[in-house]
Amino acid sequence: MDILRVESSLVCTRRIDGLQKTSLRVLANARGKRMVAVDPVGARPGNWVFVVEGSAARYAAGDFSVLTDLTIGGIIDYWDTEQADTSGAPKQKVG
Amino acid sequence: MDILRVESSLVCTRRIDGLQKTSLRVLANARGKRMVAVDPVGARPGNWVFVVEGSAARYAAGDFSVLTDLTIGGIIDYWDTEQADTSGAPKQKVG
Amino acid sequence: MDILRVESSLVCTRRIDGLQKTSLRVLANARGKRMVAVDPVGARPGNWVFVVEGSAARYAAGDFSVLTDLTIGGIIDYWDTEQADTSGAPKQKVG
Amino acid sequence: MDILRVESSLVCTRRIDGLQKTSLRVLANARGKRMVAVDPVGARPGNWVFVVEGSAARYAAGDFSVLTDLTIGGIIDYWDTEQADTSGAPKQKVG
Amino acid sequence: MDILRVESSLVCTRRIDGLQKTSLRVLANARGKRMVAVDPVGARPGNWVFVVEGSAARYAAGDFSVLTDLTIGGIIDYWDTEQADTSGAPKQKVG
Repeated sequence: MDILRVESSLVCTRRIDGLQKTSLRVLANARGKRMVAVDPVGARPGNWVFVVEGSAARYAAGDFSVLTDLTIGGIIDYWDTEQADTSGAPKQKVG
Repeated sequence: MDILRVESSLVCTRRIDGLQKTSLRVLANARGKRMVAVDPVGARPGNWVFVVEGSAARYAAGDFSVLTDLTIGGIIDYWDTEQADTSGAPKQKVG
Repeated sequence: MDILRVESSLVCTRRIDGLQKTSLRVLANARGKRMVAVDPVGARPGNWVFVVEGSAARYAAGDFSVLTDLTIGGIIDYWDTEQADTSGAPKQKVG
Repeated sequence: MDILRVESSLVCTRRIDGLQKTSLRVLANARGKRMVAVDPVGARPGNWVFVVEGSAARYAAGDFSVLTDLTIGGIIDYWDTEQADTSGAPKQKVG
Repeated sequence: MDILRVESSLVCTRRIDGLQKTSLRVLANARGKRMVAVDPVGARPGNWVFVVEGSAARYAAGDFSVLTDLTIGGIIDYWDTEQADTSGAPKQKVG
């Protein structure tokens, strides 16, 4: 499960019915690449989260019929890193 | 779900039956890499869209029997970015 | 669905039974990376094709029991590009 | 199955119910990119492990209903490398 | 299906039950990145092989209940390349 940072909400008036009424967020990885994910946990801009990909993303959205391939799985509080950090991801405390 | 830009329609006379009568679009990511996706929403060249990958792409195409692994999920109107942009993707308003 | 160029046929005497009697092709992307795909459409070396990945690749091979994760989905005739091309992929006419 | 190194445990108070009571680890690949995985084998920081991706990750977590896309599959003891190593991964003995 | 080279066998005493009694190999791609795959065909170090990813990898391992996401699909004998090679992969004859 990749580690990404929430940037903002996505405004998207024309979308497939299969996404239903899900909230969409724009996320970015440590290198600045942006992606769109369904958010069932209520993450805010600036939160670091991990995301579930593939068919598990549909179950993670709360309903297998939601047609997503990327869903936020949890908001990261912190982790303890035991070596130097070079990736730009959160080191100790996040939030 | 990745964020891509629609470039053009794809002309492809010999293709597998499993793609049925779907419309195919050539999309490009922020770094110029091109891909082919099924378009159920009617995107036009220049639109920024997000795409659904994997098995969800088949449902997103409107029929699970459509043999695609990439389907346009929605046309992006805009999002609010809270930090400098370095990826070449749309910043505020798209379309 | 990625865009790749057919390079050659693959000779492979010892392979899993699950690939059955499918034709295998060596393909390369715009950056020279090579992959192996099942070819149900009869592509020739030099053709630009798009490929179907994941579980859809098995259906695309004509039989779900074919154990491939990459199958040629169609031979590209051409597309109209509306901006400068930097990737090495076909611009206008292919074939 | 990718080869990764365990860095630490992940503290994450708000997460989807589908991850149940699984232990989450932060892993890093040879280039420093971090990911989150479910750990059913009891790996410790510093261990080199290989991980199972995709739908197999859910079965590997011990229960298909665990909504992960990445699960530790085993702790690597060692392997015999027969050529120069340039990737930063373990060469001979690990642990 | 990616093209990889077999480096060695993997010694791994603690692993998930779902891998059963399969043989594991360490493979490397043309850029030196290493991965672990189940080997149902009996490949030896130095062989170039192609691998099956995703859910097909489980069937390819001979039993859908084997929890792998990467399985060797065949040993490559050779292929005919029609242009200059820059990737480090085998050009004509392999073995």
